[in-house]
Amino acid sequence: MVRDCSTDSVAKAVREYEGVTRKREIGGMIRALRIEAPEVIASFGEDAAVIRHNGDDALLLAADGIWSRLMEADPFWAGYCAVLVNIHDIAAMGAKPVAMVDVLSISSERIRTEVTRGMVAASTQFGVPIVGGHLHPDTPYSVVDVAILGTGRMDDLIFSHTANEGDQVIAAIDLDGRIHPSCCLNWDSVTMKSADQVRAQIALLQELGAGRLVTAGKDISNPGILGTLGMLLEVSGKGAVIDLEAIPRPDLAAHGMPFEQWVRMYPGMGFILTARDEHVDEVCRRFAAVGMAAASIGRVDGTRNLTVTYLGARTEVFDLDRDGIMRIFADEDACR
Amino acid sequence: MVRDCSTDSVAKAVREYEGVTRKREIGGMIRALRIEAPEVIASFGEDAAVIRHNGDDALLLAADGIWSRLMEADPFWAGYCAVLVNIHDIAAMGAKPVAMVDVLSISSERIRTEVTRGMVAASTQFGVPIVGGHLHPDTPYSVVDVAILGTGRMDDLIFSHTANEGDQVIAAIDLDGRIHPSCCLNWDSVTMKSADQVRAQIALLQELGAGRLVTAGKDISNPGILGTLGMLLEVSGKGAVIDLEAIPRPDLAAHGMPFEQWVRMYPGMGFILTARDEHVDEVCRRFAAVGMAAASIGRVDGTRNLTVTYLGARTEVFDLDRDGIMRIFADEDACR
Repeated sequence: MVRDCSTDSVAKAVREYEGVTRKREIGGMIRALRIEAPEVIASFGEDAAVIRHNGDDALLLAADGIWSRLMEADPFWAGYCAVLVNIHDIAAMGAKPVAMVDVLSISSERIRTEVTRGMVAASTQFGVPIVGGHLHPDTPYSVVDVAILGTGRMDDLIFSHTANEGDQVIAAIDLDGRIHPSCCLNWDSVTMKSADQVRAQIALLQELGAGRLVTAGKDISNPGILGTLGMLLEVSGKGAVIDLEAIPRPDLAAHGMPFEQWVRMYPGMGFILTARDEHVDEVCRRFAAVGMAAASIGRVDGTRNLTVTYLGARTEVFDLDRDGIMRIFADEDACR
Repeated sequence: MVRDCSTDSVAKAVREYEGVTRKREIGGMIRALRIEAPEVIASFGEDAAVIRHNGDDALLLAADGIWSRLMEADPFWAGYCAVLVNIHDIAAMGAKPVAMVDVLSISSERIRTEVTRGMVAASTQFGVPIVGGHLHPDTPYSVVDVAILGTGRMDDLIFSHTANEGDQVIAAIDLDGRIHPSCCLNWDSVTMKSADQVRAQIALLQELGAGRLVTAGKDISNPGILGTLGMLLEVSGKGAVIDLEAIPRPDLAAHGMPFEQWVRMYPGMGFILTARDEHVDEVCRRFAAVGMAAASIGRVDGTRNLTVTYLGARTEVFDLDRDGIMRIFADEDACR
């Protein structure tokens, strides 16, 4: 049971969380940047852009930056995360992460050493090389931005915008971890794991895509479990009702963590997926086999609202028609 | 004739120019970041990393950031350049620029609007879409980083590290431009040109690669004509003697520009190439056909020094064995 928690308190915590509110500017950016490009199959609103190449080959491209406050608090973890979030972007789409480039703006020797150590640690562990980039050795601020190339097959990809009414929503998270000492909203389930284990977790998504076992998916990023699901529903033009009790979670009391904190966490390894009823058990079983807790937490519906329920109470977290999260319109951007 | 110029003054201007000195940190970064990756054919030291894909297919990945001072001085031009330099990175290798992602950290609405306008202007003009990225809407600084994906054929690529002793050095620059009003070291030959013209200039490099007309090449970036040549020689493990008189240049007096300024310029469209004697005329003719002045400016030798000559005087600009520019060792990094 989830202690000391109500649907209202969870909805409010998620809705007002900066990890979510910072996404509001995305829609406007997209409308400003878009140009015609027929080979671009998906772009903004997906974890990675997809470019069709030589028929059925898919090339994926994504980029992510790290909040400056994390860079100041813990440059090693910032460097590690810069790599991690990019690998997640490609993996979540059922593709293979191939290589990364970085742009580093650095204000001190110490930050540079630590950021680099963090990037190398993750690059080595996940087996994805950093192959180039750009260095500003003398800036008054410290920023690390990473971009990643992935490859896959067009038919095997997992998109965010393809959830169907009636699908079940699956949350899959590695619960064997710790609250990161430098950031109370980061769940570190990765730095202490073997290369074999994290690579198996990443590779599983390619299997799920190739096996057509899921209808949509997205890696759980800064907006947390419910915020990420909200983004998936937003671009799919759907809604969902989620049972808070069903969300996989570690022993919250042992970690001294309220449920409102857990649902806003960036998990080191976590995905939100949707699947047809007949595939849910198999998907959850495969996640368990790579050390991740996966469970059906609710169902996609046609409402365009994300609603949470708990012990008979229910609260709407997002009205995606009225507010949106990224403020992308489902019919205009997710799939071009 | 180049007025009021000596080999010493040019060598000093280039050697001490920040566009060059900021490259010194690259070697250390490379040694820190490298991990084993057999499919990575080239990485640091080249304009873009090259990943072998499905046999003879080449995937290229590069990233570049814009100096913060340019971002503050002229966010439109900073956004435009962020796209331009990435397109150059792919083009210089004889490949096709396919798509870009950006990471934008923005301190004000005005800067965001202008940077975005600049990126869209270049993206539209060159026909290379921006397909995704990341936005920090609320940072105390303003940074734009862009990464780019390119595609090509392994056999058609142009590398930096493949210049041979005896090759001629060709500088190709679009001289029809202006000193950019926001930055005295930027030669803007692009914003006023048609999409057809700039796309023809970019596409020419693919032709030169496919026709095996050049042995090495690099786009002229912040280090300018001689600094860029120095970087090419450094990773090739070679030297060169360059005749300053032969370097293509606009009417310097009309632009009120000393020669020392011109050689440090970032030209809107400029490449340094090396070619065997029998191909030099054809290469220069093809550049002229797309509106770029190209000329042989000297010859590659085995010295590992970049030396400039003018009216019988000669001065060494870089001792690449002793100092280096990027401090990459020719035998360890350019081609893995």
